[in-house]
Amino acid sequence: MNKPIIVVNFKAYGESTGKNSLNIAKTAEKVSNETGIEIAVAPSFVDLVKIKESVSIPVYAQHVDNILPGSHTGSITLENLKDWNIDGIIINHSEKQLKVSDIDELIKRSRGMGMKSIACTNNVSVTRAVASLGPDYVAIEPPELIGGDISVSVARPEVISDSVKVVKEVNINVTVLCGAGVKNKNDVKKAYQLGSSGILVASGVVKSKDIKSSLMDLASGFKGD
Amino acid sequence: MNKPIIVVNFKAYGESTGKNSLNIAKTAEKVSNETGIEIAVAPSFVDLVKIKESVSIPVYAQHVDNILPGSHTGSITLENLKDWNIDGIIINHSEKQLKVSDIDELIKRSRGMGMKSIACTNNVSVTRAVASLGPDYVAIEPPELIGGDISVSVARPEVISDSVKVVKEVNINVTVLCGAGVKNKNDVKKAYQLGSSGILVASGVVKSKDIKSSLMDLASGFKGD
Amino acid sequence: MNKPIIVVNFKAYGESTGKNSLNIAKTAEKVSNETGIEIAVAPSFVDLVKIKESVSIPVYAQHVDNILPGSHTGSITLENLKDWNIDGIIINHSEKQLKVSDIDELIKRSRGMGMKSIACTNNVSVTRAVASLGPDYVAIEPPELIGGDISVSVARPEVISDSVKVVKEVNINVTVLCGAGVKNKNDVKKAYQLGSSGILVASGVVKSKDIKSSLMDLASGFKGD
Amino acid sequence: MNKPIIVVNFKAYGESTGKNSLNIAKTAEKVSNETGIEIAVAPSFVDLVKIKESVSIPVYAQHVDNILPGSHTGSITLENLKDWNIDGIIINHSEKQLKVSDIDELIKRSRGMGMKSIACTNNVSVTRAVASLGPDYVAIEPPELIGGDISVSVARPEVISDSVKVVKEVNINVTVLCGAGVKNKNDVKKAYQLGSSGILVASGVVKSKDIKSSLMDLASGFKGD
Repeated sequence: MNKPIIVVNFKAYGESTGKNSLNIAKTAEKVSNETGIEIAVAPSFVDLVKIKESVSIPVYAQHVDNILPGSHTGSITLENLKDWNIDGIIINHSEKQLKVSDIDELIKRSRGMGMKSIACTNNVSVTRAVASLGPDYVAIEPPELIGGDISVSVARPEVISDSVKVVKEVNINVTVLCGAGVKNKNDVKKAYQLGSSGILVASGVVKSKDIKSSLMDLASGFKGD
Repeated sequence: MNKPIIVVNFKAYGESTGKNSLNIAKTAEKVSNETGIEIAVAPSFVDLVKIKESVSIPVYAQHVDNILPGSHTGSITLENLKDWNIDGIIINHSEKQLKVSDIDELIKRSRGMGMKSIACTNNVSVTRAVASLGPDYVAIEPPELIGGDISVSVARPEVISDSVKVVKEVNINVTVLCGAGVKNKNDVKKAYQLGSSGILVASGVVKSKDIKSSLMDLASGFKGD
Repeated sequence: MNKPIIVVNFKAYGESTGKNSLNIAKTAEKVSNETGIEIAVAPSFVDLVKIKESVSIPVYAQHVDNILPGSHTGSITLENLKDWNIDGIIINHSEKQLKVSDIDELIKRSRGMGMKSIACTNNVSVTRAVASLGPDYVAIEPPELIGGDISVSVARPEVISDSVKVVKEVNINVTVLCGAGVKNKNDVKKAYQLGSSGILVASGVVKSKDIKSSLMDLASGFKGD
Repeated sequence: MNKPIIVVNFKAYGESTGKNSLNIAKTAEKVSNETGIEIAVAPSFVDLVKIKESVSIPVYAQHVDNILPGSHTGSITLENLKDWNIDGIIINHSEKQLKVSDIDELIKRSRGMGMKSIACTNNVSVTRAVASLGPDYVAIEPPELIGGDISVSVARPEVISDSVKVVKEVNINVTVLCGAGVKNKNDVKKAYQLGSSGILVASGVVKSKDIKSSLMDLASGFKGD
């Protein structure tokens, strides 16, 4: 089994953008230090650099444009992220889906620059296709489970186990994250047992009344007890 | 005549993103202080906050998404900008054009939050339409002049004078900026005489070998000599 | 008052695409002939030519791409529409919104080719902006009324009267259509009294169990009784 | 080896849209009948039905939207195509690229409706990813060869042979088409020898002064002489 990881997507929630984002990132760093579980944070483009300068855990962008530096008002390059030592990128999130040729190039270019890539997918066949492009992680988010209260590991455990299986077939180096339907310690435990190596979470953490407790609970799911 | 302004769009050039962006912003601040001409800078989303914390001149975003805070991975809200005291937004740049309903809402919402808006346009009829939506500024950029060596005030002076005329007809409070074909002091002088109150520049400044000289030259165009 | 018009948008409903579209278009032609009210139909791109060849009432496209003939797989040019004598275009529908520069060019280019343009808008300020670009018609569709059961003329009569007023200010040649919240004869009558010259309808007609009756009812609203 | 096929993409060229499209389609039918080589045509949405009713060779759409029948002004559904017996769809063309989740669903849904799918790709890694989604055909178009005068089989034969290899690994049922850099009989012959089963062509045929000769020449490349 791979080293467990929790990736916290801050999205564009009021609770996790602007100055609020710093507190969440620092809490994530604290939980990571206390539990030994790797926790990465993905704040908005605007908040990225402040957070990168404030914490020592990995900081990911939520998206990036597949363009080279140049005349592109309003767009963000990998080079711009790299210059501030951003650790990686989330790409193809269901809320920011990309053309397949852009996913392909962004995976190659980010790797060439020493950045990690997490590519999101929505079902087993898309997971296989995207995994064959060789990102560091695929995060599978069945659309029917996003933002809901249903546990993927209870409702549709085969989505995880089948994703793990097809990923192994096409690219042994790609790690599977469970990206929806993970609410608590038990969901993490099941997802981990089914072969995923980590989770991608958002509102369940950043909109929680007690962010530290939420993260501690999720992190405990990776422990073998 | 309105108070002159120079807006420097950093776009996504390697010369003006990442840590490079800070030097350009500080140079702009210096020239603004020395000349008394207002200079605003528009760095990438990623560089915005670092620059806002480093200079006292106005800092604009190059774009913003017309969304409310929420579940929007990879998008940027006005609220996120406002939380870091960003002064304004450029919208509808030719490289990031928007639906007209989004321009309308972003102008209203940014004003409600105390932020300025610069809306870009490409010809006189679009200038009239966009000015009627009431942004603080319209910046007219005839596509045939973008990135080239032709002076708008020489090649097509009527684009500026006609824009100024139609803007006055539809909304007296909107200020016209000249957004393409401005290379030097003489272009600024002509554009100012034709009724525009300022300029929106990009590569001419940020890719210049001597950014301070370039900005000093442009700023001098507003002086009556 | 302008000559009344009813425009029927077939959208992509199963009830009004493919071979079904022909029956609706023929019914519209019949009602137009019987009532003397102009009725135009806007079927899908795929159904356009078959319908144009089957009826003598005006046939509009629901959208068009702002491109010139060339290497644009999957896109539709004005020239392609014109070659089959399509009478006009709907542009900027809330379900297919456009950049303002594209609206501007499509209005100019379609007029140059002898085609009519109906530009959709969502509120009074956008109506003013789009009307200033000079389409033949603006169709105002307040988003809160689209697809619902609320009558615009009852719930928000000022949206129509204010739209009529601002349109007269910016371009006297533009005709206002009421594009949402029109369900029956009384709604048409009110909309007509408030100054709109016609209506843009969709599901209320094409998903009706008795399309002829629905259209007869709407058409009767323009009669002064 | 699979049964050879030539797919002619009419794009939005003036030479191959509107009434012009009918002549090209009829010529393609004639060449297909004379040579025994399958030739499919892909006209614009607007021209599709007229052509389907005029020829007996397969007729493909150049694109389709991944939506179900409903309130989608300006969009085209698979159901709308199927109702007129359109034979298949080209998807993800470089000029109309799609999100990977849309490619996945369109392949599944078109197959469920008895329609063929041709999915375009731009390099070997994207070919592998898209082939794993199981379209009937992948058409590989290296961007550097599109619209140019370079022969793929001469300049980059490994693009074809590697594509054929990876496709066989992920899905034996997918057929490889060569989508760029095919100008004449010799290019076809080489592409066929390298393992592709057919070609996707556009301007080389539809902008040719003698369309019949062009198609006869290409078709002859599949013969073993």
